[in-house]
Amino acid sequence: MIGEAPSPIRAHEADEHDFIVRALSAVGVSESDAGDVADVLVTADLRGVESHGIARLDVFYVRRIEGGVVNARPAYATLCDRPTQYALDAGNGLGHPAGVFAMRKAIDKARQHGLAFATVRNSNHYGIAAYYAMLALEHDCIGLSMTNSTHLTVPTFGAQKTQGTNPISVAIPAHGHAPYVLDMSTSGVTFGRLEVSERKGKLLKPGWAVGADGRETLDPTTAMTVGALLPLGGYGTEGGGHKGYGLGALVEILCGVLSGGMFGTALGLDERGMHGGTVAHFFGAFRIDALRDVKDFERDVARELQTFEQSAPVPGVESVVTAGEPERANTERYRREGVPIDPKVWDGLDAMAERLGLEKLERFTVG
Amino acid sequence: MIGEAPSPIRAHEADEHDFIVRALSAVGVSESDAGDVADVLVTADLRGVESHGIARLDVFYVRRIEGGVVNARPAYATLCDRPTQYALDAGNGLGHPAGVFAMRKAIDKARQHGLAFATVRNSNHYGIAAYYAMLALEHDCIGLSMTNSTHLTVPTFGAQKTQGTNPISVAIPAHGHAPYVLDMSTSGVTFGRLEVSERKGKLLKPGWAVGADGRETLDPTTAMTVGALLPLGGYGTEGGGHKGYGLGALVEILCGVLSGGMFGTALGLDERGMHGGTVAHFFGAFRIDALRDVKDFERDVARELQTFEQSAPVPGVESVVTAGEPERANTERYRREGVPIDPKVWDGLDAMAERLGLEKLERFTVG
Repeated sequence: MIGEAPSPIRAHEADEHDFIVRALSAVGVSESDAGDVADVLVTADLRGVESHGIARLDVFYVRRIEGGVVNARPAYATLCDRPTQYALDAGNGLGHPAGVFAMRKAIDKARQHGLAFATVRNSNHYGIAAYYAMLALEHDCIGLSMTNSTHLTVPTFGAQKTQGTNPISVAIPAHGHAPYVLDMSTSGVTFGRLEVSERKGKLLKPGWAVGADGRETLDPTTAMTVGALLPLGGYGTEGGGHKGYGLGALVEILCGVLSGGMFGTALGLDERGMHGGTVAHFFGAFRIDALRDVKDFERDVARELQTFEQSAPVPGVESVVTAGEPERANTERYRREGVPIDPKVWDGLDAMAERLGLEKLERFTVG
Repeated sequence: MIGEAPSPIRAHEADEHDFIVRALSAVGVSESDAGDVADVLVTADLRGVESHGIARLDVFYVRRIEGGVVNARPAYATLCDRPTQYALDAGNGLGHPAGVFAMRKAIDKARQHGLAFATVRNSNHYGIAAYYAMLALEHDCIGLSMTNSTHLTVPTFGAQKTQGTNPISVAIPAHGHAPYVLDMSTSGVTFGRLEVSERKGKLLKPGWAVGADGRETLDPTTAMTVGALLPLGGYGTEGGGHKGYGLGALVEILCGVLSGGMFGTALGLDERGMHGGTVAHFFGAFRIDALRDVKDFERDVARELQTFEQSAPVPGVESVVTAGEPERANTERYRREGVPIDPKVWDGLDAMAERLGLEKLERFTVG
């Protein structure tokens, strides 16, 4: 969570991975698919994006399979397979294996033909968007990943939720520098930020949320119960809210509509997250050496990123950062120190292990 | 200008186009290239984006050619020509013909191979990003257009300008509905909004600009003289300013670095806009029928856009709008009523006509 110290109760990366695989296997997921989910969730936790890591394992994945909402053993259907395009129907399976499968198709096609896009429909929550974009990096490609999601956000001057937090991620390799990894929701904040504010008894910040009538509210409970999130840029058009809304709508179209999946009010019905197969993804891969020598390009990207990082910061701030660098630093640190997991999340994982008859995830304490 | 009534002093679309061609021809631009510039500028004025229309003709294009900053007759060099990629060195010519040339390459390649990207380096200001993205529409393609620009924007928690207003435009066709045309700067507002505030003696809005030390300011004069623009999402990270900054940096990389053009402090030197050839563009085209039947897709896009438009607005607002619809309505109206041109801009055009020995642009008054 942004601004919160990492939990001192840690798990080893390998143990966490193994635990996720065991939990998903226990509800019928294949070992290969479970491994994909574990890869994505552990990566999120290592990068410090705790909201999208193992914290979601039980409620978003295990329970939805137990409840018959998501298929443990989906049948994939290829809808289109051309030199530069691929389209998958993921059979209402878990989003992570479907995303990995489609992104790898895009990368293979990009390696052969310069660039490629892939869509996935009839899928589910796929974790952090960055994971898929970053798969392109080791293939000397630029990666793109986006997904639609449960409708939580109003359009500009709207009172009804019409789009999700709809993240966009782009990953670009750099030489001798962390890759550039942008991973941003197109809403101002995600729902988790409202929960944190409520828990701490704090007012929301302007630009985050609206009440039932679509007008801005600073009360977290109102926002969470009868209200909605605002697009990036905030209420109305003065702060550029129409741009965040425009990006969110773009993600809805490229994911939901282009994939032939669900969109509009059909996707909106998914508000409680209990209808499977309503999520769609969009992936892209772009081979760098089709345009420039890879090494030259990667060196220039590093120089460009250093231009930002070496520019003067505002007084009191240590330095300007570039997208992906804090997450790289977190990964290095948590690989060394262990993956921090919130005490409440530990409780949930223990209860889940008991329910599924699994050995618990091993923990240790630092600091 | 947002929130200002259109000028009652109008020009016929055809007269405006002809005047722009005559002005550029007078300083040595070929008739074909001048026609491209006129197409882009007239389109901007018709869409109501006056800041990017004929208002820029003299200072941004004619005078820069007269001053030897921009080449009237550039030599284009193809740097890369592959099935799905094209890279152009625009020879420090005008941005509009270079943009049209490269975007048409991307569209041709996409028609043949499903999708394609094109870069342009050593170019100049190309007007509205949307013009190029929209070229894809009549070819049943999704179009993408972005450009870097004079550095006016600080990074998050930065005090130095490291990126431009760096617009991103995506155009998607819809059946029986205005196409979806997102065209957004990745800064909160453009420099023009600061000028309007100063002229009207109004304070800036939060999230627009900073002073010399990188801290937020509401004073337009401070912002314009020693300060800078803020990224979309405003100051710091609470409103998502790091996302706007992240998108702006992405545009810098895809345009400046991937094209092999200028970036970092090299591009930053262009602050007074008097160094030619520092601008780079990035274009893409994506053939829809490679993934879905075009008519089905366009009907579904229209349904999705109607979902937004028919959703409940906040009290006092007539309806939710989608990107591109107000611009389509403006175009229809100004085609009928004449293109509005600001009185101050008329003065400048008259003075330019006199300087170049041209017949003045004909005007008429409405309302």
